[in-house]
Amino acid sequence: MNDVEPSSTGLPSDLPAHAARLLHAVRQEQPLIQCLTNSVVTNYTANVLLAVGASPAMTDIGGEAGPFARIASGLLVNLGTPTPEQRLAMREAVAARRSVGGRWVLDPVAVGALPVRTALAADLLDVGPTVIRGNASEIRALAGQAGGGRGVDSTDSAADAVPAAIDLAARTGGAVAVSGAVDEVVGAPARVGGDTGGAVERYRNHHDAALLTKVTGGGCALGAVIAAFLAVGPDDSPAICAALATGYYTLAARQATEVSTGPGSFAVALLDRLAAISPDEFAADTGLSVVPATATDDDANASAATAATAVDTAATAVAASAATVETAVDTAATTESAAVRTGATR
Amino acid sequence: MNDVEPSSTGLPSDLPAHAARLLHAVRQEQPLIQCLTNSVVTNYTANVLLAVGASPAMTDIGGEAGPFARIASGLLVNLGTPTPEQRLAMREAVAARRSVGGRWVLDPVAVGALPVRTALAADLLDVGPTVIRGNASEIRALAGQAGGGRGVDSTDSAADAVPAAIDLAARTGGAVAVSGAVDEVVGAPARVGGDTGGAVERYRNHHDAALLTKVTGGGCALGAVIAAFLAVGPDDSPAICAALATGYYTLAARQATEVSTGPGSFAVALLDRLAAISPDEFAADTGLSVVPATATDDDANASAATAATAVDTAATAVAASAATVETAVDTAATTESAAVRTGATR
Amino acid sequence: MNDVEPSSTGLPSDLPAHAARLLHAVRQEQPLIQCLTNSVVTNYTANVLLAVGASPAMTDIGGEAGPFARIASGLLVNLGTPTPEQRLAMREAVAARRSVGGRWVLDPVAVGALPVRTALAADLLDVGPTVIRGNASEIRALAGQAGGGRGVDSTDSAADAVPAAIDLAARTGGAVAVSGAVDEVVGAPARVGGDTGGAVERYRNHHDAALLTKVTGGGCALGAVIAAFLAVGPDDSPAICAALATGYYTLAARQATEVSTGPGSFAVALLDRLAAISPDEFAADTGLSVVPATATDDDANASAATAATAVDTAATAVAASAATVETAVDTAATTESAAVRTGATR
Repeated sequence: MNDVEPSSTGLPSDLPAHAARLLHAVRQEQPLIQCLTNSVVTNYTANVLLAVGASPAMTDIGGEAGPFARIASGLLVNLGTPTPEQRLAMREAVAARRSVGGRWVLDPVAVGALPVRTALAADLLDVGPTVIRGNASEIRALAGQAGGGRGVDSTDSAADAVPAAIDLAARTGGAVAVSGAVDEVVGAPARVGGDTGGAVERYRNHHDAALLTKVTGGGCALGAVIAAFLAVGPDDSPAICAALATGYYTLAARQATEVSTGPGSFAVALLDRLAAISPDEFAADTGLSVVPATATDDDANASAATAATAVDTAATAVAASAATVETAVDTAATTESAAVRTGATR
Repeated sequence: MNDVEPSSTGLPSDLPAHAARLLHAVRQEQPLIQCLTNSVVTNYTANVLLAVGASPAMTDIGGEAGPFARIASGLLVNLGTPTPEQRLAMREAVAARRSVGGRWVLDPVAVGALPVRTALAADLLDVGPTVIRGNASEIRALAGQAGGGRGVDSTDSAADAVPAAIDLAARTGGAVAVSGAVDEVVGAPARVGGDTGGAVERYRNHHDAALLTKVTGGGCALGAVIAAFLAVGPDDSPAICAALATGYYTLAARQATEVSTGPGSFAVALLDRLAAISPDEFAADTGLSVVPATATDDDANASAATAATAVDTAATAVAASAATVETAVDTAATTESAAVRTGATR
Repeated sequence: MNDVEPSSTGLPSDLPAHAARLLHAVRQEQPLIQCLTNSVVTNYTANVLLAVGASPAMTDIGGEAGPFARIASGLLVNLGTPTPEQRLAMREAVAARRSVGGRWVLDPVAVGALPVRTALAADLLDVGPTVIRGNASEIRALAGQAGGGRGVDSTDSAADAVPAAIDLAARTGGAVAVSGAVDEVVGAPARVGGDTGGAVERYRNHHDAALLTKVTGGGCALGAVIAAFLAVGPDDSPAICAALATGYYTLAARQATEVSTGPGSFAVALLDRLAAISPDEFAADTGLSVVPATATDDDANASAATAATAVDTAATAVAASAATVETAVDTAATTESAAVRTGATR
């Protein structure tokens, strides 16, 4: 599937050519991607980056994470298992990265349901991640839309989180990628006068890659691939880099599904396919469509004005006191705690 | 092999039906299993849980481990690489879990031979794990039966550790699963008057899964599967949940052995088979037999009275001083240090 | 390829027999190898050791690493992700290991480009690792040859680092293994009078194992295999143990390449092949040649006198101040930072 529709918002009209160009550039430039990621998925994430053609470096200790973030080609910060040492290193890396104007990716694993990472995520959000990648529950929680007693909901589709994603993109000026059965990627609304109510760059990915949810790190590794595409497309928007990374990764996953007999052989085949797909093969099947601005965006724009406040509120509510924390967690449990359930490992 | 014998102690007489029901429930309910486990096996353990049909969450930092343990469906604490941060999180998680009456699994990796974890294990044992899973050396060491200058012995069969296992079960009121060429699972002795000298619920697993010893985390991941079975069988005894988890896991391992060409492909095939085995297929080949009370139990009952004291002694002896520590470790080395050798990674 | 040339320096003339004997011994003795290694590769390293026939133990916390290092059969210290806790444990382990005269392996991942590990590496070097294993950039940086504004260079071949390797071997009295398209292994120069200007034991490995660079931990795991070969060949020189471990590991890698369809299936096949190769099969294809002393050695001897000073200088230069650190790192970036790029994960 490759429904490249004419864009009404000045978006790229030739996604296949973009796709081939960026994948080729990853293979040629072998961008050095620094990952501060959770302990469950470090190995798989590094192997995914190697398979893609990039060079991983898991430099995540204090005193090294900052200097390294200045020179790396890309940076991923994933909150899956944020030990005190890693939290220190993450703050150091993000500050150093910002000081040199470098792009970086935030994966807010299980934010909203667990207190330590929720407070950390609010701080990191203030630094302005170039791309935020998460599932629908995490994106909504990060945008402060998980309140009202409902907690996070595992049955959210990615589309349900698009308004929250646009809120976040408006705040950071970057892009937000929401993973789901169909993936959604949005950029920051264009500024109209002093406002952010303009058109939104938006993509949808249609590759069927359901087995990714059966491999730990299946989602986390995508964050690293997005960082690699950002590194080699400095003149491309964060949204199109994130969309193309998603299309490529899920194309490999779909192909891997066809040759595997379960989640173990799928994870192995995914690495093989990531290394094997040529730029031309990717261009012929990006999986992406460009989504024109719709009524959904109007909803989003309406709520964008409250985004900054909402995020701060989310962090405050969770971090305020132990009692509040437990309430927040219990609330999440009541609604099946999907962000928690899947977030901590995928 | 599926020798379901009539039980003389009120044990379930229809293991196949139990087997099918619990495996079906894991797949349906997708229990959320929190794992505080060693850094070597986090990835494989998470992938095993996903393959089984459960949802892993490796939430193991202070400030999050406790709140999470209140809402998780299951909890595994594995002592393989207990950093200070993890030790803090383990104490927090276990206390929180107990406060809500939740079940949990303890895997006392290399206890007895290494000082930090031995002291920690003694404390955790006091909180009453629902199931303890280990190899024969670890179970004997945890029960305080490794003293007398012999240290731990790598040639222990699981059967040799059954008296120690019954001692521990009597103390915790839960079950103990001993891994070996033939696996042994025992429950707590029934109380007769104020004593614990009653009949013991006991199972034996006969599936040949020797290649599990060639994959790091092969044993550790079983602890997580036991936690998943405990989660979906709240009205089933800890012993039968642990036995069925063992039977299912080793059935998948036996099938994986048949299609693999070495330890690498075996580890991959194990994940595929764990996901593929149907409840009916498991029911037709549980691998389990019910073991009637025998003379072995008499030995165990005789020694049960000294169990609590022995465990405290083990921790004290190892933790008392550096000099003692080195003596204990040297002793283990003299007798080939099997718990150390295999325990730290499997 | 198996070009065993007559040695002019008293080196073993029958490499095939040595090869068969040491591999057989690993399988028989199952040496217990303690690994303090980076968080990215713990799992793969443990599985490589199990496949080889050794027993892994990732005992890397303070209070346990030291006592364990006294009793383990071998010890690997890998600086890939040196958290404060691991740095403490590494110092503890190496001191304990030295106190009992035990052999150990140092893998100085990304040394020279990152400040914390560079300072640590200088300290550990003083303790005298039996074997140092790294890529050309790391070996040159550790020997203090990366200064002068050039930083490390990704295009170094292993041969380019032989003078630096000989410098280091002269300082430690052990061996240095340099990984590359063709691997180089050197021993310490023989002492002539009070000087170290004598002949150098030297091997070259010719197996083509390029896919190892596409699997994270592909190089790191070789350090563990070297530790296993050192453990079972106490009367063999460090250099021949390191060379044979390299020949065996890369033979398995070459065979794995032939049966795999990408980096994912290669990593799996490597484990299968490591377990399958028989001592006789290895003897028939060690991949090794003995390198006679050449002019290269003269260069090395000339620079050996300055080695100790150079290493201290490297550590000082990087650790001196934040400003210096950033300069050093920026310099590395300018020259493509290959040690950083590949070192942190391989």
